[in-house]
Amino acid sequence: MSGILLKEVRLEGKVCDVLIEGRRFSRIAEHIAAPDAQRIECGGKLAIVPPFQNMHSHLAMTLLRGYADDMELFEWLEKHIWPAEAKLSQDDVYWGTRLALLEMIRSGSVFVNDMYWHQGATLRAVEEMGLRAAIGFMYICVPGGGVLESNRQANEELREQAQNRSARISLTHAPHAIYTVNEKTLLEIGEKARTEDAVLHIHAAETLREVRQCQAEHGKSPIAYLHGLGLLGPKTVLAHCTHLSDEDIGLISDSGSTIAHNPVSNMKLCSGLFRFQDALQAGCRIGIGTDGCASNNNLSMLDEMKFAALSAKVQSGNPEAGKAEEVFRAATQAACQCFDIDAGEIAVGKLADAVLLRLQEPSMLGDYNLRANLVYSADSRVVDTTICDGKILMLHGEIPGEEEILERNRVICRRLGGGH
Amino acid sequence: MSGILLKEVRLEGKVCDVLIEGRRFSRIAEHIAAPDAQRIECGGKLAIVPPFQNMHSHLAMTLLRGYADDMELFEWLEKHIWPAEAKLSQDDVYWGTRLALLEMIRSGSVFVNDMYWHQGATLRAVEEMGLRAAIGFMYICVPGGGVLESNRQANEELREQAQNRSARISLTHAPHAIYTVNEKTLLEIGEKARTEDAVLHIHAAETLREVRQCQAEHGKSPIAYLHGLGLLGPKTVLAHCTHLSDEDIGLISDSGSTIAHNPVSNMKLCSGLFRFQDALQAGCRIGIGTDGCASNNNLSMLDEMKFAALSAKVQSGNPEAGKAEEVFRAATQAACQCFDIDAGEIAVGKLADAVLLRLQEPSMLGDYNLRANLVYSADSRVVDTTICDGKILMLHGEIPGEEEILERNRVICRRLGGGH
Repeated sequence: MSGILLKEVRLEGKVCDVLIEGRRFSRIAEHIAAPDAQRIECGGKLAIVPPFQNMHSHLAMTLLRGYADDMELFEWLEKHIWPAEAKLSQDDVYWGTRLALLEMIRSGSVFVNDMYWHQGATLRAVEEMGLRAAIGFMYICVPGGGVLESNRQANEELREQAQNRSARISLTHAPHAIYTVNEKTLLEIGEKARTEDAVLHIHAAETLREVRQCQAEHGKSPIAYLHGLGLLGPKTVLAHCTHLSDEDIGLISDSGSTIAHNPVSNMKLCSGLFRFQDALQAGCRIGIGTDGCASNNNLSMLDEMKFAALSAKVQSGNPEAGKAEEVFRAATQAACQCFDIDAGEIAVGKLADAVLLRLQEPSMLGDYNLRANLVYSADSRVVDTTICDGKILMLHGEIPGEEEILERNRVICRRLGGGH
Repeated sequence: MSGILLKEVRLEGKVCDVLIEGRRFSRIAEHIAAPDAQRIECGGKLAIVPPFQNMHSHLAMTLLRGYADDMELFEWLEKHIWPAEAKLSQDDVYWGTRLALLEMIRSGSVFVNDMYWHQGATLRAVEEMGLRAAIGFMYICVPGGGVLESNRQANEELREQAQNRSARISLTHAPHAIYTVNEKTLLEIGEKARTEDAVLHIHAAETLREVRQCQAEHGKSPIAYLHGLGLLGPKTVLAHCTHLSDEDIGLISDSGSTIAHNPVSNMKLCSGLFRFQDALQAGCRIGIGTDGCASNNNLSMLDEMKFAALSAKVQSGNPEAGKAEEVFRAATQAACQCFDIDAGEIAVGKLADAVLLRLQEPSMLGDYNLRANLVYSADSRVVDTTICDGKILMLHGEIPGEEEILERNRVICRRLGGGH
């Protein structure tokens, strides 16, 4: 068989045929004859939209979903999350990542910008399951010293694993944050990212504590500090940005940096509310991410869009903020710009990333506005089929290998204990 | 066949058999032989929990899902929602309600406290689909005058329809709000509710505008005003309560009134954030509701629990507020108290209301804490089977009559137009 033919699929409200050949959409027309293609019969009951791009996550934290919740950030990290993470092997991260990818496919995401450790295992899992990912070389410094030995080792493994990687995977440099990586190292990483034309991915302005500490140490905000180090730019992804001044927003917008907005995690950990509408109006590039499962606790961009829209309204006091259309765009297009992925719309010539949605679900009726239904009403039940890079990852709800992934993860979770 | 036998179901982490006879759970034990019962094989892979109770909704507004979003409350109401509602016939409300009930069953809810019009049709739909509901006689006054003629007529029809109602359905008196119903009428309705021992259901302290207007007219808060009229008490449900003073919280707690908390609607319309933790600590009875689909835009209590937990944290600035356990209790037990429904737990002698959950979903792993997974991670994909009053409403995802309900609603939505 050659290619995939989506027969009678709904595209922007109209029924048509869509042909995928190789990695791209090759034809969209009222009737397409492609006898050699694999046919997916949509019968006017499935709609096609661009899939979601998760702009910030720590995938293998699926293993810690529900491990510890409802507590203060540092108690949570120090007493629960870090001790549990210390028990994770490379194999655990591999299976935890596959579980995460399973959940992503089920909820219609095909790209993730990830930051974790044992990243060689992450890369292997992504290659095998067929999604796109940006995977970070990770950097945390020993207090007063250089990068953690465990980071160096994991980064080395990633470099090794990445040598024959597919076009679906790119590598980023991911210094954890300005308070865990010293200035000298930040400058070196920035230089490396520039030389390699790689994305720089960093937690920034996530908590008030970080902002205050940065003000005290450097006399400026985290964003201004990063700007001063030359680390802002079109290849920079700033995760969280829950505390931004007008000046910060100006710096982000002028530099073309991308904000990875994580509304659920920010609410769950009481980090603060991102100024979505202000940043949008200032022309900032905004993407949406789920963060890791321990602080969310899922990877559904459908959930995340609803929180993005509603928290934008609460933050601004304006019900017109965070419109469904804007949130949907942020959730489906941000990676295209900053990771140079030629996708994000269903159009001839674009990379064939797509989600087919079941319009026969109660949550999709009234059917006045598909995007509003996706942002405010839908959950993963509506996701019928997920396609990435011209390959089918899930067909009518079926994902090959799902059983094994669940079983392997159940065993790991039993070992990790937990149960709070 | 006599009874329903849930074979090898997980109850609080342990595998056991659960027998339902008539309307109630009759036995829970390691092994139960009940050869005449309908068997549901759970194989240790389905967990049983009490289903959700939706404490405030306007069911047939499913017909207006996505009709108009992202705008200011009064523009939304006056330009979009009210004109569309004026076009709704009794038959529309019947089918819109059935669509809502379908969505409720799919997402694990079996009770709803509803306030809408053409309520005779609502009652008919609930009877046919087997859920529990409290359905309100509705009251809105003509400015400067008595109750709307359309209310009187619809209430008459409800009274008629309700004569032979099942034990699953109760009737409430539902004056819309203190700013749409005059004092004399409020007093009369209160008297009527007391005489009939019926629940009084009213929107209260939903917006700052309402609070300010009440202060200006009566020199007190909406809650204090209702208290002054003798309308608070264990049979009163106060919907929204987004603006409460400490005094208000004390009055609600002392009177035993129930708050129906609607976090999504309050965020979407920028009404404000309910003081969940303060009210809980003061001993208030709290339930959770979805409000109508036009301001949510779904009826999933799974969605609503996540918003309840996270908005409690944001409102209080405390990540320990809105704990999963507390939110789950509010979502599954509030109706038991104030509507005298002997359910809310899976225990011998209780009414057999239950949801069976698919533990084989990616969103349910790690499996450290079932309630945290339900509140923070699950969506309606995990709901396998829904049981109400000893009857199966959905078995392994199948609901009889679903196709017709969707088709009928599609026709109505086409007529209503919309498409903003």
